[in-house]
Amino acid sequence: MTRIARTLGLAFVTLATLAASSVTLAQADWLSHWNDGPAKQAIIKFVQTTTDPKNRQFVPPEQRIATFDQDGTLWVEHPIYTQVLYCLDRVPAVVKQKPELASVEPFKTVLSGDREAIARLSMDDLLKIVAATLTGMTLEQFQTEVESWLATARDPRWKQPYTELTYLPMQELLKYLRANGYRTYIVTGGGQDFVRVYSQQVYGIPPEQVVGSAGATKYGYDKSGKPILIKEPKLLLNDDHAGKPEGIQLMIGRRPYAAVGNSIGDRQMLEYTHAGDGLRLAMIVLHDDPKREYSYGPARGLPDTKLGTFTQALYDEAEKNGWIVISMKGDWKQIFSFEQ
Amino acid sequence: MTRIARTLGLAFVTLATLAASSVTLAQADWLSHWNDGPAKQAIIKFVQTTTDPKNRQFVPPEQRIATFDQDGTLWVEHPIYTQVLYCLDRVPAVVKQKPELASVEPFKTVLSGDREAIARLSMDDLLKIVAATLTGMTLEQFQTEVESWLATARDPRWKQPYTELTYLPMQELLKYLRANGYRTYIVTGGGQDFVRVYSQQVYGIPPEQVVGSAGATKYGYDKSGKPILIKEPKLLLNDDHAGKPEGIQLMIGRRPYAAVGNSIGDRQMLEYTHAGDGLRLAMIVLHDDPKREYSYGPARGLPDTKLGTFTQALYDEAEKNGWIVISMKGDWKQIFSFEQ
Repeated sequence: MTRIARTLGLAFVTLATLAASSVTLAQADWLSHWNDGPAKQAIIKFVQTTTDPKNRQFVPPEQRIATFDQDGTLWVEHPIYTQVLYCLDRVPAVVKQKPELASVEPFKTVLSGDREAIARLSMDDLLKIVAATLTGMTLEQFQTEVESWLATARDPRWKQPYTELTYLPMQELLKYLRANGYRTYIVTGGGQDFVRVYSQQVYGIPPEQVVGSAGATKYGYDKSGKPILIKEPKLLLNDDHAGKPEGIQLMIGRRPYAAVGNSIGDRQMLEYTHAGDGLRLAMIVLHDDPKREYSYGPARGLPDTKLGTFTQALYDEAEKNGWIVISMKGDWKQIFSFEQ
Repeated sequence: MTRIARTLGLAFVTLATLAASSVTLAQADWLSHWNDGPAKQAIIKFVQTTTDPKNRQFVPPEQRIATFDQDGTLWVEHPIYTQVLYCLDRVPAVVKQKPELASVEPFKTVLSGDREAIARLSMDDLLKIVAATLTGMTLEQFQTEVESWLATARDPRWKQPYTELTYLPMQELLKYLRANGYRTYIVTGGGQDFVRVYSQQVYGIPPEQVVGSAGATKYGYDKSGKPILIKEPKLLLNDDHAGKPEGIQLMIGRRPYAAVGNSIGDRQMLEYTHAGDGLRLAMIVLHDDPKREYSYGPARGLPDTKLGTFTQALYDEAEKNGWIVISMKGDWKQIFSFEQ
């Protein structure tokens, strides 16, 4: 053994020791805004088991996939999805470009500002608004419009940008999983192109790891002959319910080892994840904290709001299958990072 | 400075020196089966420029995406696509399960083994065969069938498994790009599920980085209640021509910095890539080597075979736009890794 080799050997041992102790220290801190309890314990057990090469439930790094619903799981969905707010807010700009829409429903109602009438709009009406505000422009135009809206819009309750309404404990979970070799994906019923605009900045999740309801784009050329992609009013993937595992197969091609959701639209994703071999983690967020966030069910006797998609059927299935229920009230020390 | 710190310091310097010299050595070797020429020079210039933080055309690692067509670009496509051979070979097994098909066209012709009659089958006939052999089973069954076929099927000319018919210089290019932080994707008109079965083993490309023509899957349950995905005869993405940039947007959500193809079906992907800001690399493989592989055009006066999708229009556009033409005959020292 040469002197350099000995020196290197010593250095490696020392580095390994330093690395090991910093990992231990870091492990303890990853979920610092989670209370000790079954949810936190289940997460840590899952990560330690599946990343331990000596454990027979070890998962090779390339297979470490974790999928997260967005609305109600990573950020606030109540009382109305953020993307729907975006669409409603975009209506005046769309009408400015097409003035003939001003006297046509449902645009007339949206322009009236009558909140009760807007709340009564049918699903068909909402789809017309979605088509008018999310399609017909180039992808770049759409991205610019979303960025500009996110920079200025504020939610009425917390007076924060919507991108601040993410749950701090879930941000910790995303980072903890990534630090252990898991690739974190968003699998949302919301618009794939919409979420991709801010996913890296808000969640540290790159656009290629966002699976969502996806419309077609049409390849063409602008006046100068430059290639463009135009957003079309044609749905390719309705990424909700059975569409979630189908979308995961289409876009990722691997079954996740961990999945987190909060509504009946996540049921199939959780089932599909949990049914795989070895140790899997399936979790649902229960909105049972009316003081710090919202309280809605109807499972577990929580109020059945219009949005209420956390149904008793989902809760029953969670209990039957051993999915972990995350209580916002009981499991989370703090909900938002701006609450300091 | 403590003794350990000094030791560590020395070790780091030594490690850094070792690492730097091995990188330099490796750089020179990455494309060792390419002849020196405009193609090799363009590749090296592209990689060195876009990975140099001091260069104004530097590309941040997260944006380093390179997309590769498969058939005719990464492996042999002549005289018939490998996946079509798979479908034809699967017909007897399908007929065994559904004996009524034995007397129905086009299955009757395929079973006859009459090569000339099979070669005359119409596109409609081929689509019937594709639907019968690629859909109607669970995803796992399909994957098992493809794996088993790949393990035993041999091409008639080289007597090799089809997975050995990849171009060694392109394998080098994939590795060279990955070593420089590029994520390599396959963007193929072929079936996404088919290519994903072998992409990791054959190209070092994981399933989530395969974009291809994609059929729907249907989520359901087997007899024991376990979730399954059934492959459906419904096309979600026709990943050819304009479908390539559209598929890239759907599945990746970023414009590539490098794209390599060989046929008119790759034109839009190359255009879209090349039209982005900064330095981009667009290349097409010219099959001009009848001795070591095949020769077909019709561009540049090469024979216009039935398959011939390397058209003069594509070649004209390449010349106009400054896309790099890779001559198999002139640019590649060796075509296959089994030729030693």
